[in-house]
Amino acid sequence: MRIKINGERLSDELEQLACFSDAPAPAVTRILYSEQDLKARDFIKGLAEKAELSIREDALGNTFFRLEGSDPSLSAVATGSHIDAIPHSGRYDGTVGVLGGLEALRALKESGLELKRSLELILFTAEEPTRFGVGCLGSRAMAGTLSLKDILELKDEDGKSPDEVRREAGFKGELEDVQLSQNTYHAFVELHIEQGPLLEQKNMPIGVVTAIAAPSTLHIKLEGEGGHAGAVLMPQRKDALLAAAEIALSAEEAARTSGSIDSVATVGILDVHPRAVNSIPSRAFMTLDVRDTNLARRDKMIEDIKEAAETITADRKIKLTLKTINADPPATCSEHIIHATEAAARNLGLDTLPMVSRAYHDTLFMARICSVGMIFIPCKDGISHRPDEYASPKDINKGVRVLAQTLADLAS
Amino acid sequence: MRIKINGERLSDELEQLACFSDAPAPAVTRILYSEQDLKARDFIKGLAEKAELSIREDALGNTFFRLEGSDPSLSAVATGSHIDAIPHSGRYDGTVGVLGGLEALRALKESGLELKRSLELILFTAEEPTRFGVGCLGSRAMAGTLSLKDILELKDEDGKSPDEVRREAGFKGELEDVQLSQNTYHAFVELHIEQGPLLEQKNMPIGVVTAIAAPSTLHIKLEGEGGHAGAVLMPQRKDALLAAAEIALSAEEAARTSGSIDSVATVGILDVHPRAVNSIPSRAFMTLDVRDTNLARRDKMIEDIKEAAETITADRKIKLTLKTINADPPATCSEHIIHATEAAARNLGLDTLPMVSRAYHDTLFMARICSVGMIFIPCKDGISHRPDEYASPKDINKGVRVLAQTLADLAS
Repeated sequence: MRIKINGERLSDELEQLACFSDAPAPAVTRILYSEQDLKARDFIKGLAEKAELSIREDALGNTFFRLEGSDPSLSAVATGSHIDAIPHSGRYDGTVGVLGGLEALRALKESGLELKRSLELILFTAEEPTRFGVGCLGSRAMAGTLSLKDILELKDEDGKSPDEVRREAGFKGELEDVQLSQNTYHAFVELHIEQGPLLEQKNMPIGVVTAIAAPSTLHIKLEGEGGHAGAVLMPQRKDALLAAAEIALSAEEAARTSGSIDSVATVGILDVHPRAVNSIPSRAFMTLDVRDTNLARRDKMIEDIKEAAETITADRKIKLTLKTINADPPATCSEHIIHATEAAARNLGLDTLPMVSRAYHDTLFMARICSVGMIFIPCKDGISHRPDEYASPKDINKGVRVLAQTLADLAS
Repeated sequence: MRIKINGERLSDELEQLACFSDAPAPAVTRILYSEQDLKARDFIKGLAEKAELSIREDALGNTFFRLEGSDPSLSAVATGSHIDAIPHSGRYDGTVGVLGGLEALRALKESGLELKRSLELILFTAEEPTRFGVGCLGSRAMAGTLSLKDILELKDEDGKSPDEVRREAGFKGELEDVQLSQNTYHAFVELHIEQGPLLEQKNMPIGVVTAIAAPSTLHIKLEGEGGHAGAVLMPQRKDALLAAAEIALSAEEAARTSGSIDSVATVGILDVHPRAVNSIPSRAFMTLDVRDTNLARRDKMIEDIKEAAETITADRKIKLTLKTINADPPATCSEHIIHATEAAARNLGLDTLPMVSRAYHDTLFMARICSVGMIFIPCKDGISHRPDEYASPKDINKGVRVLAQTLADLAS
């Protein structure tokens, strides 16, 4: 039986969702619990109500849209992704999985197909680490990877905790109820743009993810000594920015010499204080993002960078504070979901490419509580986290068709 | 005749002035035309009115407090400094020259000493480059070093020009009237904290400046390519931050290997875009401040850094835009003012140290239109542009006494 998805409706909705943004189009900025984030959530809840899905929100704002199956005693099959967007990024990262997931559920409902298991679409809170420095806040909390204590200790740039801001945003309930038990879901499948160039290069419409790389984030604080840019002579300086510069370059070096093309290290944020043209930077703050498909290799890179940072700061007489924000192991996708996805694509006449996800996703944490799979679709030139991120309606529709068929298979 | 200065009054006023700040004490932040800057100006105008000095403001807010001499046909002798403060800096930089200058004028008035030449205290607008990226905005404009066209082209971080913001701040008059003619002043002498450690180390109360180092500021824009920190492999990256890191280190290298201890280079500001933990920096902006007592050596440093920046950005496939904001020659202090200052100190029983100013000051630009001199006093540990900047009341009073005596000598 052919499940008919409404591509035009989905395109329209993606376009409308992109308007909830704090950056001028085509850029999208949608930070956790910002006015635009809350408006975007309302928009999606409105669509789900119209589609007669039941809605549940947890204390962090993870939102569950449910289509009841014929046997409510069975655990549900879930899909989902996120709608938050880092500053000046694009409109497809996450949103394709949320609105595409919604379209899949609507199409299955409209198809009249009887499914034994219930289906759920999950809108995860804060997949992006923008506000609290840790990615996948919602799914980490659901999986229990982030304990209640860990969550309460996080602070945003204004010094507020997730508990404060989620209350201000109107999310009720108890944080201890966010964690889900192991039998909540039978399976979880996420549809996402690839955020890399492989599918496009190989002209393949569907990527079937077999594993997700192991990510780690560190916060690095450097405290040196400020002073007047004219008066303090070079040998007397303890310039925090120069130490940060050397550490950033050592991170690049560690990734480039790891022996694998899969090793990446990125300094995405570097702030200096007091940030004045004629003042020596007394302090610097930087983030370090390190990933690899291989856990041991990733951890070796981190050790190399830490060692370099210690030498650099000792030489420059700078105080170093390193904090590991997260250090997650890789996840492996389930064979039976990989097969279901490949079969769904084959039935639709679509070729598939097995691949590793170098970006991490809520799926990485859902893997702690259920079987998982991921479906990738191509994005133009592999570009993501930029305003010119693009996935064609045609490619999105193919992904949604494969997702719907996979969900139907898993729920039957 | 002994000129009696009121050190207690001056200490009180310095304390009160420090309260006009956008940073919590002991830090001071006082940005051009901010509410706190305007309040601080009103405070000083109030003191000057009480002292019965006449007040004139120009279109940029340079403020002139005048004590008429017995022969108004003669050009005036001036002193002065600035009250703006870079973010999170201290309370003595500039303010000692403004309030100390005021105290010197009051003391001379109260002494009943008849002076032929009029005396003027000048409060210069924006010695610090915080708002418009160029230091000594007021004195540059007075000296004509910065043309009206140059001034109109400057923009602050909100895209506003000095002309817009000075009008918003309530400064009337025409910008073309700010420039002064060569015969406006007979001499200009600025009292300032050393901002370096020499006087303290040598236990000398008074530094007599013989020359001011040649400063230059450049703005460097780097445009690479952003992307997802997980998905874009290392060899494909065009990371603007890593190019900035290499350029900052090359600036340090250029200063350290110039062959002179007087060479300094500082990257005080480094901003990255989009500034997200999981996004490769697509753009970076940095400032470069290069100084030397020798003009040729300074320009050689700048050439070395430019050359390094070109190689670095070519290798990394980053677009480089370099803009010279200012490149000023050094200034030499006048023999007759140096002698007057040394004589004044000798009369007061104070030792003097001839020295070079590595920081630059409004005096650098006043040197274009009249004879100049500078009097330095020690500051604790040579620290400046930091909240713990400190000059003792005793040292300040000594400086003010020498200033008053020097002004009296030059005005006689």
